[in-house]
Amino acid sequence: MRTITAGVLGAGRIGKIHANNLMAMPGVRLKAIADPYADFKEWPGSGIATSANPGDVLNDPAIEAVVICSSTPSHADLTEAAARAGKHVFCEKPIDVAPERVRAVLETVEKCGVKFQVGFNRRFDPTFARVRRAVVDGEVGDVQLVRVTARDPAAPPIAYVKSSGGMFADMTIHDFDMARFLSGSEVEEVHAYGAVLVDPAIGEAGDIDTAVISMRLANGALAVIENSRQAVFGYDQRVEVLGSRGGIEAFNETPARTVLRSSAGVRHDNPLYFFLERYQRSFVVELEAFFASIREDREPPVGGNDGLMDLLVCLAASRSLIENRPVRVEQPASALSKNRR
Amino acid sequence: MRTITAGVLGAGRIGKIHANNLMAMPGVRLKAIADPYADFKEWPGSGIATSANPGDVLNDPAIEAVVICSSTPSHADLTEAAARAGKHVFCEKPIDVAPERVRAVLETVEKCGVKFQVGFNRRFDPTFARVRRAVVDGEVGDVQLVRVTARDPAAPPIAYVKSSGGMFADMTIHDFDMARFLSGSEVEEVHAYGAVLVDPAIGEAGDIDTAVISMRLANGALAVIENSRQAVFGYDQRVEVLGSRGGIEAFNETPARTVLRSSAGVRHDNPLYFFLERYQRSFVVELEAFFASIREDREPPVGGNDGLMDLLVCLAASRSLIENRPVRVEQPASALSKNRR
Amino acid sequence: MRTITAGVLGAGRIGKIHANNLMAMPGVRLKAIADPYADFKEWPGSGIATSANPGDVLNDPAIEAVVICSSTPSHADLTEAAARAGKHVFCEKPIDVAPERVRAVLETVEKCGVKFQVGFNRRFDPTFARVRRAVVDGEVGDVQLVRVTARDPAAPPIAYVKSSGGMFADMTIHDFDMARFLSGSEVEEVHAYGAVLVDPAIGEAGDIDTAVISMRLANGALAVIENSRQAVFGYDQRVEVLGSRGGIEAFNETPARTVLRSSAGVRHDNPLYFFLERYQRSFVVELEAFFASIREDREPPVGGNDGLMDLLVCLAASRSLIENRPVRVEQPASALSKNRR
Amino acid sequence: MRTITAGVLGAGRIGKIHANNLMAMPGVRLKAIADPYADFKEWPGSGIATSANPGDVLNDPAIEAVVICSSTPSHADLTEAAARAGKHVFCEKPIDVAPERVRAVLETVEKCGVKFQVGFNRRFDPTFARVRRAVVDGEVGDVQLVRVTARDPAAPPIAYVKSSGGMFADMTIHDFDMARFLSGSEVEEVHAYGAVLVDPAIGEAGDIDTAVISMRLANGALAVIENSRQAVFGYDQRVEVLGSRGGIEAFNETPARTVLRSSAGVRHDNPLYFFLERYQRSFVVELEAFFASIREDREPPVGGNDGLMDLLVCLAASRSLIENRPVRVEQPASALSKNRR
Repeated sequence: MRTITAGVLGAGRIGKIHANNLMAMPGVRLKAIADPYADFKEWPGSGIATSANPGDVLNDPAIEAVVICSSTPSHADLTEAAARAGKHVFCEKPIDVAPERVRAVLETVEKCGVKFQVGFNRRFDPTFARVRRAVVDGEVGDVQLVRVTARDPAAPPIAYVKSSGGMFADMTIHDFDMARFLSGSEVEEVHAYGAVLVDPAIGEAGDIDTAVISMRLANGALAVIENSRQAVFGYDQRVEVLGSRGGIEAFNETPARTVLRSSAGVRHDNPLYFFLERYQRSFVVELEAFFASIREDREPPVGGNDGLMDLLVCLAASRSLIENRPVRVEQPASALSKNRR
Repeated sequence: MRTITAGVLGAGRIGKIHANNLMAMPGVRLKAIADPYADFKEWPGSGIATSANPGDVLNDPAIEAVVICSSTPSHADLTEAAARAGKHVFCEKPIDVAPERVRAVLETVEKCGVKFQVGFNRRFDPTFARVRRAVVDGEVGDVQLVRVTARDPAAPPIAYVKSSGGMFADMTIHDFDMARFLSGSEVEEVHAYGAVLVDPAIGEAGDIDTAVISMRLANGALAVIENSRQAVFGYDQRVEVLGSRGGIEAFNETPARTVLRSSAGVRHDNPLYFFLERYQRSFVVELEAFFASIREDREPPVGGNDGLMDLLVCLAASRSLIENRPVRVEQPASALSKNRR
Repeated sequence: MRTITAGVLGAGRIGKIHANNLMAMPGVRLKAIADPYADFKEWPGSGIATSANPGDVLNDPAIEAVVICSSTPSHADLTEAAARAGKHVFCEKPIDVAPERVRAVLETVEKCGVKFQVGFNRRFDPTFARVRRAVVDGEVGDVQLVRVTARDPAAPPIAYVKSSGGMFADMTIHDFDMARFLSGSEVEEVHAYGAVLVDPAIGEAGDIDTAVISMRLANGALAVIENSRQAVFGYDQRVEVLGSRGGIEAFNETPARTVLRSSAGVRHDNPLYFFLERYQRSFVVELEAFFASIREDREPPVGGNDGLMDLLVCLAASRSLIENRPVRVEQPASALSKNRR
Repeated sequence: MRTITAGVLGAGRIGKIHANNLMAMPGVRLKAIADPYADFKEWPGSGIATSANPGDVLNDPAIEAVVICSSTPSHADLTEAAARAGKHVFCEKPIDVAPERVRAVLETVEKCGVKFQVGFNRRFDPTFARVRRAVVDGEVGDVQLVRVTARDPAAPPIAYVKSSGGMFADMTIHDFDMARFLSGSEVEEVHAYGAVLVDPAIGEAGDIDTAVISMRLANGALAVIENSRQAVFGYDQRVEVLGSRGGIEAFNETPARTVLRSSAGVRHDNPLYFFLERYQRSFVVELEAFFASIREDREPPVGGNDGLMDLLVCLAASRSLIENRPVRVEQPASALSKNRR
């Protein structure tokens, strides 16, 4: 296995996770991390160069691939800069919040001929990957109905809510991606009901905390997403696909597989606390897949087009919520031509 | 326990089930069954009088309560006739397919001062009753989201589809009732997506076989129903309620509680085949509740108003499907004033 | 279906259950119940004759079959009297506590040519019947290991313990029968460990409340029974069979199939409270099977020989416990020749 | 966190797993691996010195701790050599197959004042650790009954069986350790039933492939182990503890948490294939615990005494099998004085 030299841009929470995963990843050498605001005390003696200047990574000819984990507004610019420097790019989602900017980035990336993967990590979760495989392998037959249940263990601070771009952009975008991933189909139309049931302050901040979003998919199937900013029993991440030959359902992961029986009932563990625990493995697998794409010169499993389409669904859902009517999702020809079974 | 003398009108499939249950029910004496089309060979020697003439039941002064299981178009007339004869009435759903006719029946019943219960049997299923209890007892806190999953094991014959009044009236009406029952709230607005994915002939007959129906409830909560005319793995009847203090989920019942492990996998039983098997117990409990209401002179647990409201939701959903827009449910003042927690 | 006229001897707890079940059973007419100590106020107006004198049932020529639910010491005499009166006999377990007396009863019954079934009701529980079917149908292949877990929800009163004949005779005898039933094999040798861990008073009364009993079966397989007089989480009745082609496991039944999720955990219901709740259905099915045997003139599914063999295993286990050594089970030739797969 | 320099002796299957885990472990520097028979091509460019001579590791003054994964007969000698060289020792189980040799090793280790941990990795499996915690935290109350179910997915080759020391020494020793670990008690007496039901060749080799082993524990509780060399549905590793306040049960781990429903049934995944997959995480955690013991100068969580006691139970079980009688386990005073709750 050829070793690929990599750099990381952005050393916040997710940047640190990626950096640590890269250090332990066979076939990858993490050479440098750049972040203007980071303190790098985690990596002394690790042999990894740290810098406040992204240019130090982007201009290093030894670095073949960069992993962009900086703040959202910098994703598009850094992706373009890296692509122009001839580096393969793994970028955290979203590429940008404006579809036109995303389209421009995708064009740049394509022109530069580099690999580009967007961080929709949940596709690489072993449980959801198993569900997708049941669809691909025909175990469920033709997809008829997809359900995504996604509930956070606790609502975020109001300051976060205010800068989050809204629940759909912040949270549901993962579920839009999951519906597209599991069904192998684009979304044609979306209708969203939202409510403020968890915390009135979220409503005062102009956002919602509970939603039921239904969708008509391009392949004829229907889909529904159930969201809540707070399930007091923990991070609730389940999906179900019904098809002509059967159905597959994915349950929550728990710290241990035990059941405790007492006079108070028969008790299972609560789900793993939050996304860092639940999706720990997926963060490793998505990067392994990215580096394998480089090594084997094939399309990364989640491309820029996925990032664009998820964004377009998100925008349609937001509009549906405001206007209380079903809204068609803008369909780039390129997207429709890539529909999978 | 005072013994109540009862009669049954209609001896088709569900009529036979009710008659057999009444024969074994303590505190009830089934005196007579009338059905113009029935052959009554099941009951010789049982001491039960059989007749082709409903009047024989309605005019028998010894009979205090009638159970109406005749064909749908006769429900309203027979209910009114029975009420006017001073008999308490248990009527299979629907009372009628026209809201104005239902309203007239409710008025008659009220004027006559008899008890009136509609056959929404699923409320009496031990599993769904347990879910409702979790709501009533506050175990899940304030209801935020209700999901009803209802899928038949196989699509009905096309002839049945054509005369069924459509999937919503035939099948989903139980789920509308379940959403109202579990949430303790009326439905304010409904949006329905439908599709023909099971059998093209159903589409040719002008109906759908797959649906996702989302609802905004009067108490602020959201609800969603997932319907399919065919889940090949069997009768899929599940619900979930999410609330501010937790969630409760109900699973399918199976013939036995076993798991078979082999090299081919770890296999549980498929669900109980269809509604006769799955809801067997509920048919007994709903009638026990009806007769207890008579004996203790209190309101039956599912009243005529429930039948009316379920119908109004059904009509709104049908219109939403046709017009592809959210449709508000007509709200009689009386209904809204009865909202429960 | 031919209607069979039946009588019940003994109207205690289990006698009342059987009587009520018989009253609702198609193809059976319960004509009379006799019990010297009973008060019969449950059945006025039911048309069932009640009497303090068993002779009134035994001498009634219209009665074809009797169900013996009297106190244990009277089982053998009443069975013989009924058989001599030419009546088919269903007798609650045990036939007697002395093997020689049981053998004598079996001889009488055989000579009289009547059907004879012993009340090992658990074989008719739908869940355990499903496990047995997996063995018979070859789904698990050749049986290698059987486990029976049987724990009561609470220890009985000490007065009961003292007159119970010991935990093995009172409680484990059902599990010996289950091991024989599921494996389709006789027990060759048994080793028992017992302990007093639930209530010291049980130990003072000369009994045990916790046991692990291992067995070598005639077909070469091994079996183990785990007993406790008290599982605080409820009546714990599970079995598992491992075979050459797979395994099958049976779980506890619960009042409803729901899971309640809260910050305190993910909670399932406790098992159904005790044997009356858990085995409710089995009491009906065993009698249906008994009357079907009469009607179709074939061997009842649980014969007198089963009662004898269970008793012999029980005696061997008791001796093993006292002498702390494996003890061979006495094997009547007749028993061994009837081994099933 | 202080970084500890470590060496590995033995680079076979388990040695490679430990070496790879150590390379990714924070606070540990793997400096050298020695194995006379290994080819070391996995580690070029890793900076780890490889050698055919254990002395190169044992005599390196920079190495503070060694992990011994060589063949079983060399465990005792290498442990003593390492201890005498002043190095802390983690040794794969068993220390030796002869109790007197184990005792000598324990004395040497104690005299040298180094930390010593034996590789009973299953104690560190998150699921079994959760079960133990339920005991320690009093969630199940006083332990009354422990069950360990341990079945391999397929029988080993006959050559392996012949050199394995017998099923109890090769396989069940982990389960003896689990029973001691979960109960927190030593084993006083053991009775074993064994059978050859999987493969006659195993019997011809003088071994068994199926066993039920019951035990009386020093704290009064009972325990039972169920073993099979082959469960065709996969690696079956479950435990259950019943106590005065409740019970806890641990289930098998699966690759994903999904259920696939089809007309053929409701299917869960088979368990993770074998011990490398099932106990992957435990191999990391046990070494983390070992290095933490060094760093914090406290007793390792699984000491040499555990290795000795497991061996003594194993020998008693083997004798019980041969002589078909319960056999008392030799109890060193030191062992009994260390009984935990």
